[in-house]
Amino acid sequence: MVPELRKDPISGTWVIIASERSKRPNDFAGPNEKKKGGFCPFCYGNEDKTPPELLAYRAPGLEANRSGWSVRVVPNKFAAVQTEGELNPQTNNLYQTMNAIGAHEVVIESPDHNASLGSLPAAQAERVVRALCERYRAIAHDSRIQYIQIFKNSGGVAGASLEHSHWQIIAIPLVPEAVEREIANSREHYAVHRKCLFCDLLSQELEDNRRIVDQGEDFFIFCPYASRFPYELWIAPKNHLSNFGEMGERELAGLARAVKLAAGKLETAFNNPPYNIVLHTVPVQKGPELYYHWHLEILPRLTITAGFEWGTGYFINPTSPEMAAQVLRDIQLAQGEPENNQGGT
Amino acid sequence: MVPELRKDPISGTWVIIASERSKRPNDFAGPNEKKKGGFCPFCYGNEDKTPPELLAYRAPGLEANRSGWSVRVVPNKFAAVQTEGELNPQTNNLYQTMNAIGAHEVVIESPDHNASLGSLPAAQAERVVRALCERYRAIAHDSRIQYIQIFKNSGGVAGASLEHSHWQIIAIPLVPEAVEREIANSREHYAVHRKCLFCDLLSQELEDNRRIVDQGEDFFIFCPYASRFPYELWIAPKNHLSNFGEMGERELAGLARAVKLAAGKLETAFNNPPYNIVLHTVPVQKGPELYYHWHLEILPRLTITAGFEWGTGYFINPTSPEMAAQVLRDIQLAQGEPENNQGGT
Repeated sequence: MVPELRKDPISGTWVIIASERSKRPNDFAGPNEKKKGGFCPFCYGNEDKTPPELLAYRAPGLEANRSGWSVRVVPNKFAAVQTEGELNPQTNNLYQTMNAIGAHEVVIESPDHNASLGSLPAAQAERVVRALCERYRAIAHDSRIQYIQIFKNSGGVAGASLEHSHWQIIAIPLVPEAVEREIANSREHYAVHRKCLFCDLLSQELEDNRRIVDQGEDFFIFCPYASRFPYELWIAPKNHLSNFGEMGERELAGLARAVKLAAGKLETAFNNPPYNIVLHTVPVQKGPELYYHWHLEILPRLTITAGFEWGTGYFINPTSPEMAAQVLRDIQLAQGEPENNQGGT
Repeated sequence: MVPELRKDPISGTWVIIASERSKRPNDFAGPNEKKKGGFCPFCYGNEDKTPPELLAYRAPGLEANRSGWSVRVVPNKFAAVQTEGELNPQTNNLYQTMNAIGAHEVVIESPDHNASLGSLPAAQAERVVRALCERYRAIAHDSRIQYIQIFKNSGGVAGASLEHSHWQIIAIPLVPEAVEREIANSREHYAVHRKCLFCDLLSQELEDNRRIVDQGEDFFIFCPYASRFPYELWIAPKNHLSNFGEMGERELAGLARAVKLAAGKLETAFNNPPYNIVLHTVPVQKGPELYYHWHLEILPRLTITAGFEWGTGYFINPTSPEMAAQVLRDIQLAQGEPENNQGGT
């Protein structure tokens, strides 16, 4: 059965009902039960345990779907959306539904089962970012797709069902409401000031300086003024860029450095805490836009989202972003780590 | 330091920065570490370990802030908002802030440390609902308050920091965006159809019948069409009521029955799963409204909210609400439990 997108008429929120894996009470393992050790479909030698690869980086002459890759992208074996088919939107009185058509991919970050994003060699981090960008561009050609959500779940508490470090890409035929809200606020600012809201925000942050964690040549890392989570970090390009797929070579290298640095600081401060990373970018069917600015949000899962947050959509954060930024600025990571251009084990 | 409300200019979301308890990395115990056994400030004999009570039900002649109560409401000792003070709203270029003024209360459900909502005697469940409604009405008199969020966190995974069963009330000087969105959708429907959206939704559910779990004389229990969480349940009054504080004696009894029944079914199906309950009602400074319908949402925490959900605001649910409703309808709870009008241990 095709997974189904359904809209709640009261809140306006869409939900993917993946009904083919409908779960009865006994099927829930409990939210924190994760496989440690044992078989891993993302390790060398198990390439035939995933669907055939969509993209992989390996030395010339090596065979596809075999060992020897440095980054490997495969369809998610338990996809939340389906690649083939038509949307077939339907309305039944108050209810709207359509087939959950899109793409659901997994980007395996490294052949090393125990690697973490923060501990990757710099060249390997760059390959990961390059793979994300390549797949983003490839999926954007599908005219059924409205939005490509790139994200990472790190640690069982943050929703990772496999511990081998990876990213996910879910492409959907709708623009998410979270993105619509940001677009509406950014458009409003642009209409008044003829400037990008996020560019203005970065200027204000730079002048204030208390929440900046790091700035490389091309990217800022900072704790946002209204951080929802303790030690939340945002990564944004210094130059105005609205679309994640627009990055050039220089931005790819800069983003790889920033993501590795931000993850490394969190992993050091909290001894490998659970966290999510999410991309916010313009919808794929739009060209580059003057009013919007893409960015990554890193959300450490040190606290629990509970009734107040679910009821209101607002958050309670026990750590001020000013203090978080100071703590994270002060963390020094080892410099000049050995590069490993194979990115292998 | 007064906790601070800050608005994110990009998303429009407000956050409470409870900076006086700013947490350094070592202060995070890990999200699932909960005290089991040991000292409990909500048990008989420990009344002096909480702030003085705001409301309690006990037999006539018994002293306040001593044992003998059946339900007890106290200020939260670790409040996210502060009762005294002025809002003092300020704008600094792109950023808006105000003091987080409001109320944060705890409703202790029973003196029995091991009781669960579903296992309460019926008369005790009614006292709990009555206390929630009484406090709602009392807080609504404060003209600084715009919204009163009533919620329950049950189990450590759902954010409960104490296992002794309780509810919480957080009153804030803003109307939450989640409520604003529901109001906007409901107003739009009313403008076109001159009928309450939720009343129409209940009619459609009743006709369809596949997602109805139970209907008493005054309340429906059903799995919503676009359930975000597996086994999500909504409880709504059959008659049009927009404001939680409007309930009469008949509704109080009906709601108590419905809440106890819904919680009891979940507790039986999943052996006391973690869950949140959240109230959605009209903002307090509004009169009864024709377009809005209050309801409770029960959100079992059997799955983990991860990158896709944080990025998009959309959800992936592995259980269809039709199957969930069937499973929950089929669960028979023990009838005719002994009533205990003291509700005590």
